[in-house]
Amino acid sequence: MKTPLHVFKIGGHVLDDETSLQQFAAAFARVAGPKILVHGGGKGASELLHNLGIAPQMVQGRRITDAATLDVVTMFYAGKTNKQLVALLQASSVPALGLSGADGNAIRASRRPVREVDYGFVGDLAAGSINTDLLRGLLNMNLVPVLCAITHDGAGQLLNTNADTIASAIAQAMAGSYAVTLHFCFEKDGVLADANDEQSVIRRITPDEYAQLKADGVVSAGMVPKLDNAFAALTAGVEAAVIENALKINEPIKTVLCRS
Amino acid sequence: MKTPLHVFKIGGHVLDDETSLQQFAAAFARVAGPKILVHGGGKGASELLHNLGIAPQMVQGRRITDAATLDVVTMFYAGKTNKQLVALLQASSVPALGLSGADGNAIRASRRPVREVDYGFVGDLAAGSINTDLLRGLLNMNLVPVLCAITHDGAGQLLNTNADTIASAIAQAMAGSYAVTLHFCFEKDGVLADANDEQSVIRRITPDEYAQLKADGVVSAGMVPKLDNAFAALTAGVEAAVIENALKINEPIKTVLCRS
Repeated sequence: MKTPLHVFKIGGHVLDDETSLQQFAAAFARVAGPKILVHGGGKGASELLHNLGIAPQMVQGRRITDAATLDVVTMFYAGKTNKQLVALLQASSVPALGLSGADGNAIRASRRPVREVDYGFVGDLAAGSINTDLLRGLLNMNLVPVLCAITHDGAGQLLNTNADTIASAIAQAMAGSYAVTLHFCFEKDGVLADANDEQSVIRRITPDEYAQLKADGVVSAGMVPKLDNAFAALTAGVEAAVIENALKINEPIKTVLCRS
Repeated sequence: MKTPLHVFKIGGHVLDDETSLQQFAAAFARVAGPKILVHGGGKGASELLHNLGIAPQMVQGRRITDAATLDVVTMFYAGKTNKQLVALLQASSVPALGLSGADGNAIRASRRPVREVDYGFVGDLAAGSINTDLLRGLLNMNLVPVLCAITHDGAGQLLNTNADTIASAIAQAMAGSYAVTLHFCFEKDGVLADANDEQSVIRRITPDEYAQLKADGVVSAGMVPKLDNAFAALTAGVEAAVIENALKINEPIKTVLCRS
């Protein structure tokens, strides 16, 4: 039987608020066994860009990462967010070790090809992007890898990558040697049947039900890439995928995505 | 016989210039066997502070690290400098893995007590500050730890620490299980007998000779802490200490500090 491994992804809301972050750290400390944490960025990176006079460039809802923007988001995600998170987790007795994708060649990406849009220094993942030997080695040292969403191309170039994609790719890559549960954490308790009713958490969703929820417009546009990622992970061998509240990861109410 | 371990420290000049940094990376790749790299910060951190309207506060030549300054230097050292360096080293086939002192509890420090001066969020090291188990574990995975000079107090607080002090402390702590050579790299070829003659490298200095050089004012004020650190490391069991040019680490001209 494979050893269980929990891969968590947290994003903006919990990272922007010190109290929330401490609450998450305490809850995360209570998750038993090997675990990996992936984090996105919060509002802080946009504020820092603004304070430095770098106007955020968005195309189709995506940030264009020019060289100046890459510098700033690397500093913010890999420097500030990652190190503050690691220090907080260490204070909560979690043996956290922060990584960018460059560290130990943890995540190798390739710069997104220019088609209609040049996204700039944005990295896409492919099969073999995740250095599973490194992650297994760190887990065997009883460390908890904490990854930010900065990757590298192996030729010295850092790249900005979507954190949900990284979490899903890690879960899939590690599924060869662990029974992986992928946890997408956000500010709600799960996928809601009624966007205006926080109590309407759908406790269980199959791929067929997901198709129907999308067709009915129940799942909001912002949630679709997250759920697509999670279902893709299940198809690729991840044991379980969960959508849950970052501040309630030890509590029973959440959305569990099922293979069938 | 103990396995050799090389601990290198690089600082401002080489970090501020991309070409120099690539030259260093290529030279560092040629150093055989287990190795650890510690880096300071360059001019970039001061520029970033300036661009964000945070005036650098200096007392007796030391930067006072208030909360805003700590945020910025953490971003710069642990985010930008460390990750760019790691990505460059990876491109040079060095299996680099970047760390702050918080990562894996690599370096635990305590905030400097307030006496005449409140240095702010500055961390001092004590015996046991260096997590030798972590560093040995990473070296055993054939990784090359690359440490920035940001430490933590174990209670969630990041701290700014002198990079020379960190390199010396790592060399001393690892001397229990490795035959350690400590390399302080800077922009000159070694300690100069004549500050105006770059060719006047003193090839070998004993503690007695060092005392004389200090008394004669041959060693400049800026070099004294570096040499004090290096001789302290020798006293504490480090096999050899070297003062050399960051861009000529594979070449024979350098200053070797001797126990006697």
